[in-house]
Amino acid sequence: EIVAAIEAALATDTVLPLPEGFARPSTAALKGRRVIVTSGPTHEPIDPVRYIGNRSSGKQGHAIAAAAREAGAEVTLVSGPVALADPWGVTTIHVETAREMQQAVEQALPADIFVGAAAVADWRVVEAAPEKIKKGAKNPPSLALVENPDILAAIGRRKRDRPALVAGFAAETDRLIEHAEAKRLSKGCDIIVANHVGAGANVFGGDRNEVTLISAAGRESWPNLTKTEVAARLVAAFAKKLSEARQ
Amino acid sequence: EIVAAIEAALATDTVLPLPEGFARPSTAALKGRRVIVTSGPTHEPIDPVRYIGNRSSGKQGHAIAAAAREAGAEVTLVSGPVALADPWGVTTIHVETAREMQQAVEQALPADIFVGAAAVADWRVVEAAPEKIKKGAKNPPSLALVENPDILAAIGRRKRDRPALVAGFAAETDRLIEHAEAKRLSKGCDIIVANHVGAGANVFGGDRNEVTLISAAGRESWPNLTKTEVAARLVAAFAKKLSEARQ
Repeated sequence: EIVAAIEAALATDTVLPLPEGFARPSTAALKGRRVIVTSGPTHEPIDPVRYIGNRSSGKQGHAIAAAAREAGAEVTLVSGPVALADPWGVTTIHVETAREMQQAVEQALPADIFVGAAAVADWRVVEAAPEKIKKGAKNPPSLALVENPDILAAIGRRKRDRPALVAGFAAETDRLIEHAEAKRLSKGCDIIVANHVGAGANVFGGDRNEVTLISAAGRESWPNLTKTEVAARLVAAFAKKLSEARQ
Repeated sequence: EIVAAIEAALATDTVLPLPEGFARPSTAALKGRRVIVTSGPTHEPIDPVRYIGNRSSGKQGHAIAAAAREAGAEVTLVSGPVALADPWGVTTIHVETAREMQQAVEQALPADIFVGAAAVADWRVVEAAPEKIKKGAKNPPSLALVENPDILAAIGRRKRDRPALVAGFAAETDRLIEHAEAKRLSKGCDIIVANHVGAGANVFGGDRNEVTLISAAGRESWPNLTKTEVAARLVAAFAKKLSEARQ
């Protein structure tokens, strides 16, 4: 029955009824396009065993990479530490820290679309200890932090090799839309996907997501959907924007 | 072929040849005994999305819980956030922080054996922020830390309901044995399982482990084994110690 359960689970995803108005991209919507997606958290080391992390599961970013591949794109996924399998047919690069993620993204350029879905740590510890910090008689350490590179802004503001479409995520616990629009402008993004992550929203680690797309053209709020559905819709929206931009 | 691969993987574990001198405990070695095992890391929140964590995968602790169950014990596993399934037949309690872990362990007492395999965070942030800390024009925050409860020492030094056998782990990057023996004495443990976690040792997240058992009776170093094998050997060693103590 294990076998039957696995087969059933594998089958479910493809026969799932699509919700009303669900826009699955055609399998050629991104044919010939190069897409870079970042996903998951970053881990910023405190010492060889401890780190600062965040609750991103990588499910949404990985689903976007898979959906872009399904839409015919050549996809590079730069993933922080997650408990997910590499998506099929996607070049996946595994990194730990924000600085490693930035380097991997820059090496993957040029691309037509950049999707910054990773929850990149805003700060890292000034200097990670080379040995495990011991709990001694001394006072607990105080961790001095320093700002990490802003990967999304760096890509959004590039002069050379800027992808035609740059999309980022905004995970906010208050004043969602206002902060998301400010983020879009300050980072030079074309699209911000805003999602609410406050207590009870269960976005981190969960399988569903409720997002608002924010672009220069305005806002578009989608209903609560599975992350797979959000990914397919996003890829369809990106493909549409890209083809409009080229005309 | 997916099915065949899964069946092969499931079969492998039971037909794996045992290494020379491998002591699998009898299926009744811990019959009627109560065992509490902690496993995995703890996550200490910085704000609703960020936390301080560590690289413990929980594989060794979960394997010990499963092995104790196989040896006939009634097992409670108190697990931090891990990407592992709950072991079959084991009462598994999921926690995030050191304080939650301590509370769960105390509620699970009394027990005959306590195995502290979790990598409990030594420190937590003095006060977690109720909203996500924003990256603003201000300087990066500095995280003031405060010491967490020492669960292993609290159990080892209990006057009432102290388990007959208290075992802890020591993950050290330098002067392994010396630190492990000091830990055993300072925490009131009967056994410390010392393992080397320095660069290249690949213990965190890996499937193998190389340990030295340290007790009042002396030291015993085992070869590099799978974590499943280490777990079975440890359970056999615990059962032996427990029956000696009762005589």
